[in-house]
Amino acid sequence: MTEFGLDDLPIRDDLRGSSPYGAPQLDVQVALNTNENPYPPSDRLAEALAREVSAVATGLNRYPDRDATRLRAALAGYLGHGLDADQVWAANGSNEVLQQILQVFGGPGRTAMGFEPSYSMHPIITRATNTAWLSEPRAADFSIGVAAATRAIAEHQPDIVFLTSPNNPTGTALPLEVIESVLRVAPGVVVVDEAYAEFRREGTPSALTLLADHPRLIVSRTMSKAFAMAGARLGYLAAHPAVVQALQLVRLPYHLSAVSQAVATTALDFADELLGAVKRLREERDSVVEWLRAHGFSVADSDANFVLFGEFADRSAAWRAMLDRGVLIREVGPPGWLRVTIGTPEEMTAFREALLQVAPGHLSA
Amino acid sequence: MTEFGLDDLPIRDDLRGSSPYGAPQLDVQVALNTNENPYPPSDRLAEALAREVSAVATGLNRYPDRDATRLRAALAGYLGHGLDADQVWAANGSNEVLQQILQVFGGPGRTAMGFEPSYSMHPIITRATNTAWLSEPRAADFSIGVAAATRAIAEHQPDIVFLTSPNNPTGTALPLEVIESVLRVAPGVVVVDEAYAEFRREGTPSALTLLADHPRLIVSRTMSKAFAMAGARLGYLAAHPAVVQALQLVRLPYHLSAVSQAVATTALDFADELLGAVKRLREERDSVVEWLRAHGFSVADSDANFVLFGEFADRSAAWRAMLDRGVLIREVGPPGWLRVTIGTPEEMTAFREALLQVAPGHLSA
Repeated sequence: MTEFGLDDLPIRDDLRGSSPYGAPQLDVQVALNTNENPYPPSDRLAEALAREVSAVATGLNRYPDRDATRLRAALAGYLGHGLDADQVWAANGSNEVLQQILQVFGGPGRTAMGFEPSYSMHPIITRATNTAWLSEPRAADFSIGVAAATRAIAEHQPDIVFLTSPNNPTGTALPLEVIESVLRVAPGVVVVDEAYAEFRREGTPSALTLLADHPRLIVSRTMSKAFAMAGARLGYLAAHPAVVQALQLVRLPYHLSAVSQAVATTALDFADELLGAVKRLREERDSVVEWLRAHGFSVADSDANFVLFGEFADRSAAWRAMLDRGVLIREVGPPGWLRVTIGTPEEMTAFREALLQVAPGHLSA
Repeated sequence: MTEFGLDDLPIRDDLRGSSPYGAPQLDVQVALNTNENPYPPSDRLAEALAREVSAVATGLNRYPDRDATRLRAALAGYLGHGLDADQVWAANGSNEVLQQILQVFGGPGRTAMGFEPSYSMHPIITRATNTAWLSEPRAADFSIGVAAATRAIAEHQPDIVFLTSPNNPTGTALPLEVIESVLRVAPGVVVVDEAYAEFRREGTPSALTLLADHPRLIVSRTMSKAFAMAGARLGYLAAHPAVVQALQLVRLPYHLSAVSQAVATTALDFADELLGAVKRLREERDSVVEWLRAHGFSVADSDANFVLFGEFADRSAAWRAMLDRGVLIREVGPPGWLRVTIGTPEEMTAFREALLQVAPGHLSA
């Protein structure tokens, strides 16, 4: 083969020196690093999926329903709030949903604003679509202040505003007043990324309640977390029907396979079962937060299936020491903090035991 | 709901007035319009798919293998030519493969060139990634002349050149000399879209044979056609490992679901069975070409699973008259021509009978 490397290829200048995004995929006993749901689909659901795929299989020589009508109706039914299929859109993971939003509303000469620390794919997908990224800081407690947010938006006039609620990696949910204030001043679309919505605490609102009055609001969701379907890649959003029509201008035709549509629709039939596991995870989350605080750690309030905690003088060393004990967490977010995904009770026991060995100093704090 | 339409949304200016891409999905007896394979997966394959998905299902709470290692190894094995997994990349349909190529090698300030009439998604995906599209004409017989092609490339210096072989919608395959000549003068990457490669006639070469000597050559393929998997959305490419590394800089993380990976890998195990159906389709194609010519139609030589034929004074009227007789073909390609996908023998009988009623005038030509 010709001697030839990445640097010899005429790739875009802005990609030179970059590396592929993604958490390290290490083979460890206790993987609490990518906010996966620790509870696999039940045998009953696995059987239903096999049955459904078998039914779909004999028609796989044909292209899938380009508009995923049945799946979108099922997603609308799940979301409630009086939503219809024409207010819902789905794609291969919420990453693809976000990419389509940026292809329609972003692009060269346009800007997207986010409040960081937040989901790192927002700036990555923004830049990949040649949209400029404007980063505004969250407050010290990881909240977004209404005054600061509206001032930044008024000044920069971003075409797209990303609000993440609950926020990754901090777990912070946004009061509706923040979202409403942003909607009032934002000149373009406002995306509320609710990937972790099902994990929010009692009384925490969803931006879905604002959809009826705000046609430039987009609420994105995923089946990766609450529905334990990270491997199935199904992201979706709810918005005004005009927004859904706009996304159809840029979606690749037949972007969502017949199998993906069938798998997701079947999983939605098992919503009750799957949301039962979510309830257990929320309880486990609250108990981990409590335990960490009792042991002297700083912990961000969490409405998600993960917890950001600290602070570590050398968080890389702490992360590595945890990994040495078979517990993989994530080095992400503000300096000094680490993120742990909520796993099974057994996994969280392993996490707590390892952490006490790694950071005994916090005990005396 | 607020009174609000697509025109009220701040979509990109270049999208205003556009409409979603895609062939009409009409419910007809004989659908010969989207180059689908008429032979559904066998019961044996359907059962294998169900089994495989059932096995994958219990791990769906975890993210899929981001690099689709097993699938890419299977695809490399299928392609042969001494290819390895690190020279193969896969995504949700060849459309996504092409979009990733454009995201790496195209973008604002860059250009892509194609020789038309050709696959209409090439310019659509090019523009969607904010790349400028340069259209050069094919010769009257739908071939690409070496002199004209190299002259156009030398003049415009496109960052990406698309060559489609066999070409859609004309069915025309390219001699290797054309591809080699283009590779010699093209300053950027050269994409040979071989979506229909398995249908080519005896003696027609594949650009795969050129890969070893050309690190800027990309050969794209799909499982939609020969593998009868249009519903499964699995496109792939073969190229130098550096090209594959470059694509990983822009691919959305976890873009290919665990289910898609399992379905495609399983289908590859059934390659012999599926390629048996391809042989039948090639024979049917040759016989349709012969029949059309015997009945006075102009027919483009076809190395694909479809045939472009004409010429009609009013092709829209002919298309509609065919549809009225329950036969859906495609109004696409140069004015005066229509495209018919090769279906089952029964479907092609229906096609011939309808065509004789619709265009009896060609009989006397």
